[in-house]
Amino acid sequence: MNKGHSIMEYETVELDDENGELVIIDQTKLPFKTEILRLKTQQEIWNAIYLLQVRGAPAIGVAAAFGIYLAAKEIGSEDYRAFYKEFQKAKDYLDSARPTAVNLSWALKRMEAVCNRNKDKPVKEIKKALLKEAEEIRDRDVSVCRQMGEYGLSLVKPGDGLLTHCNAGKLAAVRYGTATAPMYLGAERGYGFRIFVDETRPLLQGARLTAFELHESGLEVILICDNMSASVMRSGWVNAVFVGCDRVAANGDTANKIGTSMAALAAKRYGVPFYVCAPTSTIDMEMKTGDDIIIEERPGEEITEMWFKERMAPEGINTYNPSFDVTDNDLITGIVTEYGIAYPPYTESLKKILAESLYGYVPQL
Amino acid sequence: MNKGHSIMEYETVELDDENGELVIIDQTKLPFKTEILRLKTQQEIWNAIYLLQVRGAPAIGVAAAFGIYLAAKEIGSEDYRAFYKEFQKAKDYLDSARPTAVNLSWALKRMEAVCNRNKDKPVKEIKKALLKEAEEIRDRDVSVCRQMGEYGLSLVKPGDGLLTHCNAGKLAAVRYGTATAPMYLGAERGYGFRIFVDETRPLLQGARLTAFELHESGLEVILICDNMSASVMRSGWVNAVFVGCDRVAANGDTANKIGTSMAALAAKRYGVPFYVCAPTSTIDMEMKTGDDIIIEERPGEEITEMWFKERMAPEGINTYNPSFDVTDNDLITGIVTEYGIAYPPYTESLKKILAESLYGYVPQL
Repeated sequence: MNKGHSIMEYETVELDDENGELVIIDQTKLPFKTEILRLKTQQEIWNAIYLLQVRGAPAIGVAAAFGIYLAAKEIGSEDYRAFYKEFQKAKDYLDSARPTAVNLSWALKRMEAVCNRNKDKPVKEIKKALLKEAEEIRDRDVSVCRQMGEYGLSLVKPGDGLLTHCNAGKLAAVRYGTATAPMYLGAERGYGFRIFVDETRPLLQGARLTAFELHESGLEVILICDNMSASVMRSGWVNAVFVGCDRVAANGDTANKIGTSMAALAAKRYGVPFYVCAPTSTIDMEMKTGDDIIIEERPGEEITEMWFKERMAPEGINTYNPSFDVTDNDLITGIVTEYGIAYPPYTESLKKILAESLYGYVPQL
Repeated sequence: MNKGHSIMEYETVELDDENGELVIIDQTKLPFKTEILRLKTQQEIWNAIYLLQVRGAPAIGVAAAFGIYLAAKEIGSEDYRAFYKEFQKAKDYLDSARPTAVNLSWALKRMEAVCNRNKDKPVKEIKKALLKEAEEIRDRDVSVCRQMGEYGLSLVKPGDGLLTHCNAGKLAAVRYGTATAPMYLGAERGYGFRIFVDETRPLLQGARLTAFELHESGLEVILICDNMSASVMRSGWVNAVFVGCDRVAANGDTANKIGTSMAALAAKRYGVPFYVCAPTSTIDMEMKTGDDIIIEERPGEEITEMWFKERMAPEGINTYNPSFDVTDNDLITGIVTEYGIAYPPYTESLKKILAESLYGYVPQL
């Protein structure tokens, strides 16, 4: 881990194999404080995912992969069956930290498959293969984001106003981010975007993380409240919306941070193209539609008091705090993946893209 | 002013004529503290309106009427022309406190008309007539809200889920509120509503004021973030949306608290009727469409730091903080006034309702 001054010099998730630690930036402390957490136990890793200290679908996948590797490393038995039983216990435990982001279970399934593929080898060898797989998941994330950035960039032009919701940035991935990848690549090439960033209540990932990382990287940020995106689109200031996602159903319905669907409704209304940046790892063909996706509900205190000087709502009232919403597929102009852009009808186009992804490598444009 | 325990026993705006004071509850301190402000000078009253210590279109109108009366009372001259010159200066000054709510200028124009009608009388008499007019504006507000409540209540049924945005409640008016009037009347009659309340960023009038006053009055409140309203509507939990408004254009386009149009887009999408509660005083036939309405922009600090423990966004980023947005008329199912409900096409129906309002009395249902 780089010990430089700027937070942007850190990687979001790293493995310190020597000390048996998962090293992350505590994102609940940003942008006030750059606090590095060194996580050893499964429970520490579970907590970090649950508490959103590490967050964003791709980053959660990488953290889970390194996390299950560290858990596997600790298993003492040399007997495969005993090892595998322990491995599965750890996997189920980590898998329970958050229900909506598919990358968590996607990464853990990939790790489990390594065990199954290598079950005739000594446990020591399996552990090595697990490390290699986790590193591949991490490295793949970087090239996947870069490719999505290239495809996304092909959809916009220099000087465009862009809008994003929540944080699908570097901090949600390993590098580049998903929704931010076209922005970073464009900035490198002098595109001069103006980026409207929804603050993203209740956890303010837009204000605290996206505005922060884009600004640190020299991009022009205009922070707005979530309820202002229709207003800026009605004013004609937005040429395209890019958001990330936590899970895409077979029909293109997309679960992403709560409020995404409202930005999509506004985009539809005011003729602004709405793009979802979705690594193929977030496409879940087992979910026929968005209605099949489990939406995580979180504590009401996140709304009423978490960041405030004082509790902002009367005692005794009820709250409802869904962490995600489903954007219906007809509100989505295109789904940007590392294998190209899927357009409606998504049932066809996503299937085609997933077939290509089975080759297992990320194409170079 | 009632000195009882509950904030709900206070009137939102009162005149203490004997001491020459406008008496208001400082709404920026709610719900933590019930602080009563006694405002003497024009500048104090201007500040209270600008700083949203008194807020909500109807309440602003009443505060402005009492405010200009107090200013008039202080004018020493017995000569009408000298008096009127001073009066106009005070009027223009108070009128400049907030640009979007039409009730501010509506009330001040009514007060000015009192001067014109009585210009041949002694200044002392004019001052008495001004007091009477201001009291009428206040009293009218109560019956107007009550009538809107009756009309609004005819649109829903017991057990309905309702949703509102910002505060168009008792605290925004003198009593009953506008958007909340059907809720309060319904509650009195055992309707058992469940009210979803948008927290309403950046100033959190929903969380601090609406959730507070409804809960104090025994109604069932479910507080959500603004970006969650599409999610609850998609879940089928909302049977109708009621919002207030700051200005309605001749074609029905409506300016109301920022975010209103996004709730309207979600309502349209998920088949939920969307009603604007608009006293005829908020209908401005001089505005052909919503594009003619001036939208107040407020300081970015309201977004980045106002209520928070610490500044929530990096230093140096830009913000955009429009206080209102325009909801296009085709997103509005009906406009509830004290003279009945206007339905599309609004250019016709609003004209008809305004013609009735020229009789100047509020009909009793």
